[in-house]
Order: sequence, then C-alpha cells, then structure tokens
Amino acid sequence: MHVSKNQLKRVRGLTQKKNRQEEQAFLVEGEHALLELLASDWPIELCVVTDLFAQQHAQALGKIAQLFLASPEDLAKSGSLQSNNAGLAIVPMPQTPARVMPSDDWVLALDRLNDPGNFGTLLRIADWYGIRQIITSPDSVELFNPKVISASKGAFLRVQVQSADLSDYLARVQAAGHPVYGAYLEGENTHQLAGGLAKGVLLMGNEAQGISPSLADYVSRKLTIPAFGGAESLNVGVAAGILMDSLKRLEA
Amino acid sequence: MHVSKNQLKRVRGLTQKKNRQEEQAFLVEGEHALLELLASDWPIELCVVTDLFAQQHAQALGKIAQLFLASPEDLAKSGSLQSNNAGLAIVPMPQTPARVMPSDDWVLALDRLNDPGNFGTLLRIADWYGIRQIITSPDSVELFNPKVISASKGAFLRVQVQSADLSDYLARVQAAGHPVYGAYLEGENTHQLAGGLAKGVLLMGNEAQGISPSLADYVSRKLTIPAFGGAESLNVGVAAGILMDSLKRLEA
Repeated sequence: MHVSKNQLKRVRGLTQKKNRQEEQAFLVEGEHALLELLASDWPIELCVVTDLFAQQHAQALGKIAQLFLASPEDLAKSGSLQSNNAGLAIVPMPQTPARVMPSDDWVLALDRLNDPGNFGTLLRIADWYGIRQIITSPDSVELFNPKVISASKGAFLRVQVQSADLSDYLARVQAAGHPVYGAYLEGENTHQLAGGLAKGVLLMGNEAQGISPSLADYVSRKLTIPAFGGAESLNVGVAAGILMDSLKRLEA
Repeated sequence: MHVSKNQLKRVRGLTQKKNRQEEQAFLVEGEHALLELLASDWPIELCVVTDLFAQQHAQALGKIAQLFLASPEDLAKSGSLQSNNAGLAIVPMPQTPARVMPSDDWVLALDRLNDPGNFGTLLRIADWYGIRQIITSPDSVELFNPKVISASKGAFLRVQVQSADLSDYLARVQAAGHPVYGAYLEGENTHQLAGGLAKGVLLMGNEAQGISPSLADYVSRKLTIPAFGGAESLNVGVAAGILMDSLKRLEA
C-alpha cells in the first residue's frame, strides 16, 4: 500500500528531538541500516520502502505488519537523508538498559560529546571492540538523532547507550575498584604502557574542551597517544579507536 | 575596506572544483584554519574577515596586503561554511611537491578515497604521526575541496599531498625494497605483529570497497585490526589511526 501524507508527516516529525521524545520512537533510514535492523530482533513499528527495495527484500520484510511504499523522493523529503533509494523504519525507543559496571567488560563513557557523526563513529568502535555499553553525560548528543543512527552503521543495534550523571557513575566505578582510563593531551604515553591492564572505563571528553575538570579526580590513568608531528589533536573518534585498540592489546 | 560584490562572487566560485582548477586557487575558511594559515609561511592572495576578527588579530593580519571586511552573513553566503564569524582567505595552490620514497619516513597512500571529511581526518592523522606526504589515486576526493581543508584542522599546511597513479608509485616502492602495509579485513592480526618493522607505505582503500584488487600484488604486509564484537568494519579514518599508531609503536 502506498504511504499516506499523514504518515510522511509523522516521519518528518521524527527528525526532531522534541517529537522523538514525545512519541518515544525514532527513525532508521537507508539500505544498510534498514537491512541490519530487519536482520535483528528489534521491534519495528512501521516500514516505508521503495518498490525496488520491497521486491529485493521481500523475505526480510515478511515479518513487517505495517509495510508501505514510497518513492525515493518522498523518502528523502520526509526523512533526514539527502537521498534514500531504499526505505526507512519507525522504531520504538528501547527501554533503558540496566547499567553495567566494568568487571568482565570494558565500558566507554562520553563526556559532553557534541557531534552526531562522532557519536556514530564511537558506537562503531565500541561495536568493533565488543563493548556492550556506552555511558553518556546527559548533555551529550542524543543517540536517536538520525545522523547518529546513520553514522553508527547498525552498531546502535548491538551497543546499549545509557545517559547518566558521569560523576555518580564514575564514583561508583572507583568505589568498586575498577580503573578509569581518560584521554588527555598530557598523560602516560600509551606506547610505553605495560601489559596486564585491568578492564575498566575509557572516558573520552568533549571535542573542543576534553574531559570536564570536575571528572578528573575519578580518572585513575590519564592516557596520551604519542604525537610525532605538528597536529594539535586527533578527532575524538580516531583517538578513541587508537586508545581502545591499545587497551585491548594490553589488557590482562 | 569593505569587500566588493565581485570579490564575494569569486569566493563563491571557488567552492566549485572547476573554478579552483581554472584559477589554481582555493579557500581557507573559519577561525581555526585561518589562524593556522596566518601563522604559517604560506602565500595568501587575499583575506576577507569580520570586523571583530580584524580587531582581534590585527597583528597576524598585518602581513596581508589585500584585506577586506565582510559580515558573517556574507561570509556564510559566499563560502562553504554554514556559519563563519571569522573570515576566509583565497590561497594559491602550492606547487606539486617532489615525491618522497619511504626510507626515513612513513608515507600514507589513499586508494579511491571518496569522502572529504575522511580525507581531512586522514590529513590530521598524518600530521599527528609526523608523516610528511600523502599519495592519493587520481580518482580520490580533491585536497582543495573546502570540506577537506576544514576537516584537516590546519594539517594541509604541514602534510604534502600528491596525486599519482598508485600502481606506478607502489611498484617503485616495491623495487626500492620498502614494505607496503595494506589495510585488509583478513590479514595479519596487528596485536600479534613483532616489533622492528621497517618504515614503508601504509595503503588505505576506498570506504566501501577497500583496496583495489589491482594493487594487492604490491602489498607486502596485509594488516587487520582484530575485532572483538559485531561491527563489520571501522571508519577508514579510525582504521588508519589505529594502524598508524600500531606501526609507529612497532617500528624499528
């Protein structure tokens, strides 16, 4: 059945945070993300896809009760992508997960992360390194921002995200005896770290300002990627990838 | 002096590749990039800045013969940035640098890189690790694309970029006995590499398709970042950062 104007209007509404909060639902757009979503066991409220996508993926779409057709133009006009030849889904927000402590598992914590593309990249990194939970400060960019979902390349399906006061969280991590590794411009050289590192939290700060001074006391190991050239800094996603790779390389 | 309509039209023209090629000039926009440019010894044809920027940076601007004033609105309308409260410069393209071989220095080679933001990130990584030259395949995204310049955070001032046929270049690297390390999804686990690595070329492939099959014969060491979770891949900038960090950690 062809999608209705009202349904497209609802899609357009969900590109805005206010409406996502009100409806407790968000958009998953584009071929790659949609196929990963369909392959997962996540609940899906409604799919709007092109004729071609519907034909090519009839089997994957078999489980979707509310399936509608639309042109690529309608998809692009209603959703957040500049072009969309595949489709989109409206997905109910998942319940807030139980918060994990870093005992068996690394945890990534993000302090005031600002850029949706960076958050998507960080979700992919977490997913690559088998990190199951990311804790974000409440003033970080929202997980359900369409740019985050898109940049995460499906990682949002596997990595839980929980918003929390980082002082509270890190105090509990500290009290439980787990290390908090923080990314700083002047800390221990990661090329000289000894092996046998205990699993803990990797804390990354805001793109421009780094980690909040108020959180510094919770950081047990300040880490620095050694620089050999003239750049002042690395992109936060790149830095997180390098640090996480170093920690996994040296973990006990 | 206030900028003229014709000058703003010329700025707008330089957001297009065709005009950049014709004029052999490109734009540097925004506070951070402009300040790095002014602090460098690069030739600058012309600067257009806001009143505020002109007052705050009178000394740095002292050397600019052609200095004009414009509103933030005019800067945003003419240039490529959505907002620009600082200014922009028109800069002559640098001469093609002499091509380096990886003997004293690592070289980064990019095969069919597509995304301007990724190229900017890769320039920053090269700059961080002291790599002085990047070789790009001729069908890669253009260095002087405003999004590349902006994402590079000033790294374009310190890292030379040369466009070259990668088969030719890598054949010469191979003939000279230098290793070519390539990023693959199924290669040697970088967490198990022995130290004492000889300096060489790090070759990164296209975002979606990886390294061209026609270049595979030149790759002496296929490298893979070990995965621990469900992600299919890492962003090319993140992967390059992790690989370059591992190579520097283990270099002879």
